[in-house]
Amino acid sequence: MKLSAAMQKLIKSVRFDDSGLVPAIVQDDQDGTILMFAFMNKESLRMTLEMKKVVFWSRSRKKLWLKGESSGNVQMLKKIYVDCDQDCLLVKVKQLGNAACHTGMRSCFYREIRPSGALSVIGKRIFDPKKVYAA
Amino acid sequence: MKLSAAMQKLIKSVRFDDSGLVPAIVQDDQDGTILMFAFMNKESLRMTLEMKKVVFWSRSRKKLWLKGESSGNVQMLKKIYVDCDQDCLLVKVKQLGNAACHTGMRSCFYREIRPSGALSVIGKRIFDPKKVYAA
Repeated sequence: MKLSAAMQKLIKSVRFDDSGLVPAIVQDDQDGTILMFAFMNKESLRMTLEMKKVVFWSRSRKKLWLKGESSGNVQMLKKIYVDCDQDCLLVKVKQLGNAACHTGMRSCFYREIRPSGALSVIGKRIFDPKKVYAA
Repeated sequence: MKLSAAMQKLIKSVRFDDSGLVPAIVQDDQDGTILMFAFMNKESLRMTLEMKKVVFWSRSRKKLWLKGESSGNVQMLKKIYVDCDQDCLLVKVKQLGNAACHTGMRSCFYREIRPSGALSVIGKRIFDPKKVYAA
């Protein structure tokens, strides 16, 4: 599906930073869980809108990153929002496989900083990363 | 309240970027609404944990920024999480005044990118910024 002229114009209106990136918060569309946080560049945003599957820019690997390309845990785009300054995106998704984190946890934010200063693991592991990323 | 040695150690374990900043996602602790997105430096994270009120680093003003210092819409810290890479924070808060955005909207993410490419305003304005920021 080719994006409309209006959508192409909208993509241009997003304020990407000096590195050409915009932060993207990924939230479960159903229960509101924050699943992960990553960055998009213009091309990954365009692909996300076109494919309805979430694509990021991997800063460590310096390449486009279709979320779930290795694990199969693709994020289906449900809704997408831009913030007041147009320099951050909120992406609401259906998380296939029910886990977003490469550790096998549902959310990347699986550790709470307790008032004591301890890190407390919350939530449960959905998959075993050793098996999923074995190949 | 002075932070414990364990908490000071934990703050040091957060992976601040080359600019000394870490992204922080702010979510309503009760209904899961994403309220805003901003950055913290080490000092603002320390202050947030100590005061139980959310403090950011304002990149535009280059100063510590107690959220709500002008509007009164302070964010009371309820819970705080670190992600798998320890380079992003999720901050769950009670939002005083029920609005986080300087536009008077409850959330900064008040515009949905529609499949047509239009921006659709969602949610309602809680306060009139002209009145709140008049002084």
